[in-house]
Amino acid sequence: MKKTFLTLAAASLFTITASAMERPVTIADQGSFMAGGKTVTATGTYDGSKPTNFAGHTLHGDHAYVFWQKPIKAKKYGMVFLHGYGQSAKTWETTPDGRDGFQNIFLSKGYGVYLVDEPRRGKAGRSTLPANLTATPDDQLWYNTFRIGEWPNFYDNVKVPKDKESLSQFFHQMTPDTGAFDGKVVADAMVAVMEKTGDGVLVTHSAGGGPGWDTAMRSPYVKGVISLEPGAFPFSEGEVPETEKTTSPFPAKGTPVPLADFLKLTKIPIAVYFGDNIPKGDKPVKNWGKDNWRVRLNLAKKWEQVMKKYGGDATVIYLPDTGITGNTHFLMADLNNKEVADAMEKWMEEKGLAK
Amino acid sequence: MKKTFLTLAAASLFTITASAMERPVTIADQGSFMAGGKTVTATGTYDGSKPTNFAGHTLHGDHAYVFWQKPIKAKKYGMVFLHGYGQSAKTWETTPDGRDGFQNIFLSKGYGVYLVDEPRRGKAGRSTLPANLTATPDDQLWYNTFRIGEWPNFYDNVKVPKDKESLSQFFHQMTPDTGAFDGKVVADAMVAVMEKTGDGVLVTHSAGGGPGWDTAMRSPYVKGVISLEPGAFPFSEGEVPETEKTTSPFPAKGTPVPLADFLKLTKIPIAVYFGDNIPKGDKPVKNWGKDNWRVRLNLAKKWEQVMKKYGGDATVIYLPDTGITGNTHFLMADLNNKEVADAMEKWMEEKGLAK
Repeated sequence: MKKTFLTLAAASLFTITASAMERPVTIADQGSFMAGGKTVTATGTYDGSKPTNFAGHTLHGDHAYVFWQKPIKAKKYGMVFLHGYGQSAKTWETTPDGRDGFQNIFLSKGYGVYLVDEPRRGKAGRSTLPANLTATPDDQLWYNTFRIGEWPNFYDNVKVPKDKESLSQFFHQMTPDTGAFDGKVVADAMVAVMEKTGDGVLVTHSAGGGPGWDTAMRSPYVKGVISLEPGAFPFSEGEVPETEKTTSPFPAKGTPVPLADFLKLTKIPIAVYFGDNIPKGDKPVKNWGKDNWRVRLNLAKKWEQVMKKYGGDATVIYLPDTGITGNTHFLMADLNNKEVADAMEKWMEEKGLAK
Repeated sequence: MKKTFLTLAAASLFTITASAMERPVTIADQGSFMAGGKTVTATGTYDGSKPTNFAGHTLHGDHAYVFWQKPIKAKKYGMVFLHGYGQSAKTWETTPDGRDGFQNIFLSKGYGVYLVDEPRRGKAGRSTLPANLTATPDDQLWYNTFRIGEWPNFYDNVKVPKDKESLSQFFHQMTPDTGAFDGKVVADAMVAVMEKTGDGVLVTHSAGGGPGWDTAMRSPYVKGVISLEPGAFPFSEGEVPETEKTTSPFPAKGTPVPLADFLKLTKIPIAVYFGDNIPKGDKPVKNWGKDNWRVRLNLAKKWEQVMKKYGGDATVIYLPDTGITGNTHFLMADLNNKEVADAMEKWMEEKGLAK
């Protein structure tokens, strides 16, 4: 719906108590929606006289949830953010120590932001499949895998808040799958998300990387991809590299896709960023938290080569090589997250995605 | 942190494509946080050399998640919104047919808004207790209980969008408990939420009503309560009315609380709103979806009397008596939700809560 409005304002000087945004942002519009998913119907005939007889009842599940905000004079391309394993869109919001996350940073830069909870996670919790949630304590598995340090220590150079409350906020962000994780279900919903957002840059993190590649291969609305430490990479069939040995419980396997699909990725600019403290080389290291990323960075570089062979515009950036140091797996929340955001925007400008 | 900024703007006339907010809102600050919850530790000794041996690992759960926004020149009291059964904070956001929900409506009116996902729901999904999610289709149970109509029909006078896509969006909003619902866990987290929000008006819906009363009894930051069709009411011990018979599968029971706690509710203004199509009288009606609310409205009126006996400022409003008709259980999303919001704000103005 087209609407016309008049912005009237006077210069004014005043003071507020601010904990997050550095300056006010005028929002032209914001809202939320569900996208994709499917409806299942229980067997039997619906009987409205029996409230708890569920025969013939329906369930609407497997959709994504999106909260979005558009600043006034928004740039042409919005940014669509897809979280990683164990996270929701919270991952892009206020950082554990109360600073701006990428939501506010890119909103302040003038981008429309679309924050996704993937199917079977967060506010998109309704799943068409059952799930048994075990509530197993496993914080330390993730602390180490996310390269914050080796529990209970922090890596010396790591740029994260080290107070107890910030770490508590970080751990509380974890949220379970409410149905089995299924990359295809996520990509199906993401294609529907992009139909609603229109042309944009898809930003993925970690386990969001895999379905993100699928989304980019399937949706014409994805005009570029920024992937922060993706866990997986697609390769054209027959070109999947051998899976490296790792001390991590999570091997990094290339995913075979038809060449025709792979070639679609070569039509858009793609940047892949990795943080600090990732060992180099082809030998497993004892520190399994770090080794998890050694094999992924190696896989990323093999993927970059195949992409380039087919004429793709793909760049894999190990941030310390560019002078940005101390990042964990959570680049978007680290103490230098604005520096990371600036690097991303510079790349978007180079690729014509920051118009 | 205190910050000073300068707002410079010129009058400008332009056109945007808007689907939700009627006019831009300038946000002074926004963000999200987790509040409350607890940490559990697995038995055994942590061994960092074995990634999937979870002995000694921790789990941070049972917190609430809050997304908040503060407009410039915000009113003194923020509004804290707690959703009902099967819902998340999505319930207050964009309506199923794409109109403004209470988030945007009250933000536009100048209120800071705090949107809660209760513990074990939505983005606050990490639970300290396990859960078995069955993915049972039950949409029609809720359709009838929410007084949209008798499935598949709509009530004649009901003010909801009747297109297929809007109904689909509505059903997709449902999201499961990721741990057993526990009113005390919710209230514990809500008390922690209020410590972070500061003085405010607590707005609850449906099953959020019960923990909402507990929060108001326990937190000095709750300056007023607006409860939309709450499912439960507290009574001082010895004054709990007999539970009425109902054809609904959900009886409406008064909750006994110590008199000293009950009296705390009499110190703040409270408004309780009910929508349309609720039968009156003390006889069960065959339509169990409607009868669910007959017994709740009756219980509300008994509660109002006890509140008044102790000097409380409590008002139970059956909206059709005030000329506002056609509301379902989802007053905040119905086609006349702005009318409902205006009625709420008028009441807040009368009670000094709209400063």
